[in-house]
Amino acid sequence: MIPRYSRPEMAAIWAPENKFRIWFLIEAHACDAQAKLGVIPADAAKAVWERGDKPYTAERIARIDDIEAVTKHDVIAFTTELAEHVGAEARFVHQGMTSSDVLDTCLAVQMTQAADLLLKDMDALLAALKTRALEHKYTVCMGRSHGIHAEPVTMGLKFAGFHAEMQRNRERLLRARESIATCAISGAVGTFANIDPFVEEYVAEQLGLQPEPLSTQVIPRDRHAEYFATLGVIASSVERAATEIRHLQRTEVREAEEFFSKGQKGSSAMPHKRNPVLTENLTGLARLVRMAVIPAMENVALWHERDISHSSVERMIGPDATVTLDFALARLTNVIANLVLYPEAIERNLNQMGGLVFSQRVLLALTQAGVSREDSYRLVQRNAMKVWGGEGDLLSMLTGDEEVTARIPLDTLKELFDLGYHTKNVDAIFKRVFGADHAA
Amino acid sequence: MIPRYSRPEMAAIWAPENKFRIWFLIEAHACDAQAKLGVIPADAAKAVWERGDKPYTAERIARIDDIEAVTKHDVIAFTTELAEHVGAEARFVHQGMTSSDVLDTCLAVQMTQAADLLLKDMDALLAALKTRALEHKYTVCMGRSHGIHAEPVTMGLKFAGFHAEMQRNRERLLRARESIATCAISGAVGTFANIDPFVEEYVAEQLGLQPEPLSTQVIPRDRHAEYFATLGVIASSVERAATEIRHLQRTEVREAEEFFSKGQKGSSAMPHKRNPVLTENLTGLARLVRMAVIPAMENVALWHERDISHSSVERMIGPDATVTLDFALARLTNVIANLVLYPEAIERNLNQMGGLVFSQRVLLALTQAGVSREDSYRLVQRNAMKVWGGEGDLLSMLTGDEEVTARIPLDTLKELFDLGYHTKNVDAIFKRVFGADHAA
Amino acid sequence: MIPRYSRPEMAAIWAPENKFRIWFLIEAHACDAQAKLGVIPADAAKAVWERGDKPYTAERIARIDDIEAVTKHDVIAFTTELAEHVGAEARFVHQGMTSSDVLDTCLAVQMTQAADLLLKDMDALLAALKTRALEHKYTVCMGRSHGIHAEPVTMGLKFAGFHAEMQRNRERLLRARESIATCAISGAVGTFANIDPFVEEYVAEQLGLQPEPLSTQVIPRDRHAEYFATLGVIASSVERAATEIRHLQRTEVREAEEFFSKGQKGSSAMPHKRNPVLTENLTGLARLVRMAVIPAMENVALWHERDISHSSVERMIGPDATVTLDFALARLTNVIANLVLYPEAIERNLNQMGGLVFSQRVLLALTQAGVSREDSYRLVQRNAMKVWGGEGDLLSMLTGDEEVTARIPLDTLKELFDLGYHTKNVDAIFKRVFGADHAA
Amino acid sequence: MIPRYSRPEMAAIWAPENKFRIWFLIEAHACDAQAKLGVIPADAAKAVWERGDKPYTAERIARIDDIEAVTKHDVIAFTTELAEHVGAEARFVHQGMTSSDVLDTCLAVQMTQAADLLLKDMDALLAALKTRALEHKYTVCMGRSHGIHAEPVTMGLKFAGFHAEMQRNRERLLRARESIATCAISGAVGTFANIDPFVEEYVAEQLGLQPEPLSTQVIPRDRHAEYFATLGVIASSVERAATEIRHLQRTEVREAEEFFSKGQKGSSAMPHKRNPVLTENLTGLARLVRMAVIPAMENVALWHERDISHSSVERMIGPDATVTLDFALARLTNVIANLVLYPEAIERNLNQMGGLVFSQRVLLALTQAGVSREDSYRLVQRNAMKVWGGEGDLLSMLTGDEEVTARIPLDTLKELFDLGYHTKNVDAIFKRVFGADHAA
Repeated sequence: MIPRYSRPEMAAIWAPENKFRIWFLIEAHACDAQAKLGVIPADAAKAVWERGDKPYTAERIARIDDIEAVTKHDVIAFTTELAEHVGAEARFVHQGMTSSDVLDTCLAVQMTQAADLLLKDMDALLAALKTRALEHKYTVCMGRSHGIHAEPVTMGLKFAGFHAEMQRNRERLLRARESIATCAISGAVGTFANIDPFVEEYVAEQLGLQPEPLSTQVIPRDRHAEYFATLGVIASSVERAATEIRHLQRTEVREAEEFFSKGQKGSSAMPHKRNPVLTENLTGLARLVRMAVIPAMENVALWHERDISHSSVERMIGPDATVTLDFALARLTNVIANLVLYPEAIERNLNQMGGLVFSQRVLLALTQAGVSREDSYRLVQRNAMKVWGGEGDLLSMLTGDEEVTARIPLDTLKELFDLGYHTKNVDAIFKRVFGADHAA
Repeated sequence: MIPRYSRPEMAAIWAPENKFRIWFLIEAHACDAQAKLGVIPADAAKAVWERGDKPYTAERIARIDDIEAVTKHDVIAFTTELAEHVGAEARFVHQGMTSSDVLDTCLAVQMTQAADLLLKDMDALLAALKTRALEHKYTVCMGRSHGIHAEPVTMGLKFAGFHAEMQRNRERLLRARESIATCAISGAVGTFANIDPFVEEYVAEQLGLQPEPLSTQVIPRDRHAEYFATLGVIASSVERAATEIRHLQRTEVREAEEFFSKGQKGSSAMPHKRNPVLTENLTGLARLVRMAVIPAMENVALWHERDISHSSVERMIGPDATVTLDFALARLTNVIANLVLYPEAIERNLNQMGGLVFSQRVLLALTQAGVSREDSYRLVQRNAMKVWGGEGDLLSMLTGDEEVTARIPLDTLKELFDLGYHTKNVDAIFKRVFGADHAA
Repeated sequence: MIPRYSRPEMAAIWAPENKFRIWFLIEAHACDAQAKLGVIPADAAKAVWERGDKPYTAERIARIDDIEAVTKHDVIAFTTELAEHVGAEARFVHQGMTSSDVLDTCLAVQMTQAADLLLKDMDALLAALKTRALEHKYTVCMGRSHGIHAEPVTMGLKFAGFHAEMQRNRERLLRARESIATCAISGAVGTFANIDPFVEEYVAEQLGLQPEPLSTQVIPRDRHAEYFATLGVIASSVERAATEIRHLQRTEVREAEEFFSKGQKGSSAMPHKRNPVLTENLTGLARLVRMAVIPAMENVALWHERDISHSSVERMIGPDATVTLDFALARLTNVIANLVLYPEAIERNLNQMGGLVFSQRVLLALTQAGVSREDSYRLVQRNAMKVWGGEGDLLSMLTGDEEVTARIPLDTLKELFDLGYHTKNVDAIFKRVFGADHAA
Repeated sequence: MIPRYSRPEMAAIWAPENKFRIWFLIEAHACDAQAKLGVIPADAAKAVWERGDKPYTAERIARIDDIEAVTKHDVIAFTTELAEHVGAEARFVHQGMTSSDVLDTCLAVQMTQAADLLLKDMDALLAALKTRALEHKYTVCMGRSHGIHAEPVTMGLKFAGFHAEMQRNRERLLRARESIATCAISGAVGTFANIDPFVEEYVAEQLGLQPEPLSTQVIPRDRHAEYFATLGVIASSVERAATEIRHLQRTEVREAEEFFSKGQKGSSAMPHKRNPVLTENLTGLARLVRMAVIPAMENVALWHERDISHSSVERMIGPDATVTLDFALARLTNVIANLVLYPEAIERNLNQMGGLVFSQRVLLALTQAGVSREDSYRLVQRNAMKVWGGEGDLLSMLTGDEEVTARIPLDTLKELFDLGYHTKNVDAIFKRVFGADHAA
């Protein structure tokens, strides 16, 4: 998590202020539950809220840090500092609980908050993608497989494809959020020996979580692994969109360009350059988000009821992966929303191959005219190779090939070279992606 | 995919016989759809089924390979061989389609089949885990955090925990299966320029798939990435259970042992050794399944409408990850079902620490008796340290500590050292995991 | 390791024939050493060689497999089968040794053999790269950063860069080979309790290995981790070269093309297409080689003196990573050696940007003429933006900018637009990469 | 890079102060070289040193940040700020150079500095390991394979093994340091079009680097990949040592314990617990260091002469991986140096298996007494199984087995149960690891 690739709202989720605030809420709600059970006095719970419910300022955080420096135990440091505010009743705080009850539930809350923010990011991205998709629904451009011109598509289809993919990612993240949103207050080995399961249920409900069905001091790490794996998939989709834009912006293609702000200098050496640095950066950020996946999976196999090897990993990847992905989604949204398209270049590229992109259609027409698939292929290929060699465009070549014109009348042949043929189902695809009323 | 770690049913999914069979089904159903649309003669579609619907024998596969050796194109080799059986009508096969329509839809079918088999594996594992969980619901054993004795749990809770985790994995895999089960027959760049979307819808329905909303010659690879990431999470859960058993079997613990068959020799050098080789092996297999995750994510960012860099990756990880996980799940099921538990060792370990494991309860009792948390901690700690130093068991030490007995009467003190205290909520946890009627 | 991406020589290293052959050599040499020490009769060692030194045929391998199916122990199966040939003296075989002595030393031999083959592959690749580098030393082409035209380079420099990188990789692999080439015959926990260190030293020398200074039943896995990490770096370099070619071949660039064999069909749908499928494939293969790295590192932390979790991992990644990289290096060599370059396209692209690529030089000239860096930048940028906008080429624009011509005389300005300026140090760079006499 | 796992010296390498200081040195040395070449006035170079050679204070850094916020270009921001100190002569700074010349060379310097610090860390760790190895050279303890008691080893051998491994890692890091220590000042595409190669050579020499033979605006990323892969191997070795200690500390084994400071509280719930939290933490830190490896390899395949996707990755993993490993090495050194060993527990465990660990030796003695390997195995196994079943120790069982005593006289049998037998080659192994004079 480095400032350059952080946004304040996500960074705040991982700040000590928020962490201690969540710890406080867990402890205070647990006191309420214990009071309801009669385990601790109702006045004690009340005192915790009345005297403890205040922001974690820099001073308070420093005080907690000082105590931890001595005790080397973070939760004891926290409750000790809390006791300095709450007073004698503080001895009822944390009763029957173990540190992990607080730490793990807090992490679940933070990861849920982070997921909510990422979902918001994705909504913004989806909106931008939809806008650009509708705007360029029929902006016909060259489709490419293997980097080689294939058949026409539309710019709108590209945006719509990213939209469909990000929509799937949104559902994945929703499920990962649901999976991580559990609360464990089950004691030192998860048996509720010293605490009634009601406390867990109560705190869970207050915090919008589900009780963890079976915890073992810790919430099982398969949940976290799913979460980070989902971030990895989302990041890979970000990389896909970024890669597309990088390709479209390269000098020889130049169908699109990242927005270039006034004051910005592209290169100290080559002032004319407008580099797709934002999408290149997104490519790198995707690698960074993905690198959390394997450690998160290695974290699953803790020893017996728990070991703490996962903790340092999560301290790092928790903030890093969510902050980086938040930044990446916002940056991609900005790039998409402001992407400059160059219609002339799009059209120039479309025509570059002399109509070779229509060869598949000619092939089909020949087959339908009764020519065997192999012969059709041969006929198209020999003309295509001439076009490839620079002898002219495909329509001219075919017109001059008697074996072709013997099967397909000239008029029919010309009709095959029609862009509308390639866009006739775009609306059907858009309906699949955006629903029937998307254009309304 | 090496024979040692393969099971025939999963290996068969990835064998050429099955692959070509699926290709045939895609092409033949597509012919039916094209016939319904009037694009090709109904007789042609009929001929494909009548003369082409037969098993892919070793001979046929060899023939396809021979053709591919010349054409260097697998689908053309396939359709050419098919034409040798179907005859002239074969020219209507594959009409308007592109190779990826066949390849990608086939891969989706194979991954769906593999998921179904893995789900079956997981059901068997879940059943074994439930059986052992119920059997040992109240087999009290030592719970450990950090590898250090903590408080009592039960062996049943361990199995139940793995069950709950594997149940979550089952849901993840169901969703990944749903996500991968799509059909793309949309042509060279996904625009349906040369083929009606009806064909895709028809074939999808026949094969139990959903039409891919927007394909770009290929099915988007975020779906595959989710799938392999899910396998990685499942494998990590396998590793967790395996690690637990490896720990329980180590000489000093020896609470459990993998089943040791009669003829088996543990070691050429040390005939007494019974090594947890199956679970050690599972630890390694987990690494192998996980290693597919990052390449699958790297596959997402294909260039433009597609490049073929993903293909070699999927040829390897498709079979490898599913075959390995299938083997691992079956092996783990076998290990769980036949795991030998040693009640005497379990009890011996339980008592090893002289009752230190009850210290948390004593701590709580002191707090509830009005001692401050810090003082309670100090009181328990000073007695615990004596036990740790070998001076006797905790109950004796506490009994001899007047500062303690001043707060807790002797009778109450003794009652704190009761295993039933630790198991009182086991049933509640089992209800969460297995439902209310699990013991019925 | 799938046939499609395997070459026979590398596959043979991992075949049972070779494995059992190495096992035999280890055992037989160990017998010699034991005989020299007087631990076993000299006749016994002689008998092992005389009656046991024969190829491992399919029949022998099947026999070993049958025995292993019963004993579930591979080395016992091996020695049992060997005894069937050697007779009574076979009881002296494997004396004082443990299975890992054989298995780990064998793996070291196989990994050394694989490294030797990969080094040979790299030599072939280096030769091809050097040939193409010298051939195109002065084929000036556009250099690109961020995919955007920058300043001229030469095609030879591209090849030379890959050469320099692969040369470094060669050195890395040599070191990894040296690191893995150790022999462990130290008994069950590495103490030489039952065997004299002389045996290890003797066998090591016979097999061209170093004795492992300290083994713990197994050779420490940091050696293997280094090896697979090195393969991962090499694969990444393969991907870099492949990515360059994919870019050069894309339709809009088309400066280079993979060799296209006569019978080959590029696409069933678009017969004109010549896709860079070999280099796309190499991109995927790089991912496959890299995926071995993390599991190999996870293998390092074995429990105590050893656990067997590494074994399944190595059974898979040992063959897979080396076979795949062998195939990839050979494929890349073939692609490089036969790469078709298109001089006209190279020149067309070079001139595409209207001379903007000379802007850096103009910038420098202005600075040297006493203009401040910021003003120089501004002057060049305003003209560059006009060129970018399509108003003409840079030289014309500058010529028409009086603020520029006031500082740089027209003649000097023209001289700045000279390709020779960019190639003047190519020879110096070639000398660094290929040595002073490379052109001789 | 989070404070909890950072040490100041390594963190300082990655701080802006150090980065800008290195940038300054590169630019200033380059000015000297350009002055020597006559490209810029000697006075200009002198002015840069005289007026620019001062620390980068917080104020200066803030100023640079402010400028970058406008220009969105870090190196321009840097040179602009520098010009505010140097004055008019600043226009000669950065002449003929491109940003990457500064950035990449700076990164090389930082990675070299980081390597030097890590080498120092490793030296401290090696010293601690050697001390403990010599101290416990003959502290006989149980050796374990598969977590199961095997044959005796010594604690010293464990430390010596980690020493040998870390020594290999030291050599790997030395080579990685050498590999990364290159300087590139070659201009926008690496052709030295605008700058004489002498500048690169001169600056390289001043900074203790080698000139990069062939750069393409950037230093090739295979160097960085090797570097991070090496860190990954080292981290894995750290994990291995940490895992050993975690095992030795678990309650049932308890042969060793991390040092437990006075004020430290092990657990809020179980005051008796002394958890191996430092080594558990090291296990997690190893995962964090390893996660840099794959992104570093993905960084290799930059597009054409460079793209900037690697940059964000390196901004993160550069500091993170080195800071984390520095912290981990120091923590491991501390753990090793202060590790508490418990001789009584070591001995108790040694005897736990009733002498079964001597079975291999008995097996050998039987073979040498003329019994076939299979019969010997059977004889030992049947007695071993009785011991395993709790009927007594192995020596008693064998003494009572007439088939055994018929072959081995009682006296000889007893002599087989001698620990000295297992330690007789420890000195030879120590000589291999520490050299002949290690004990002097």
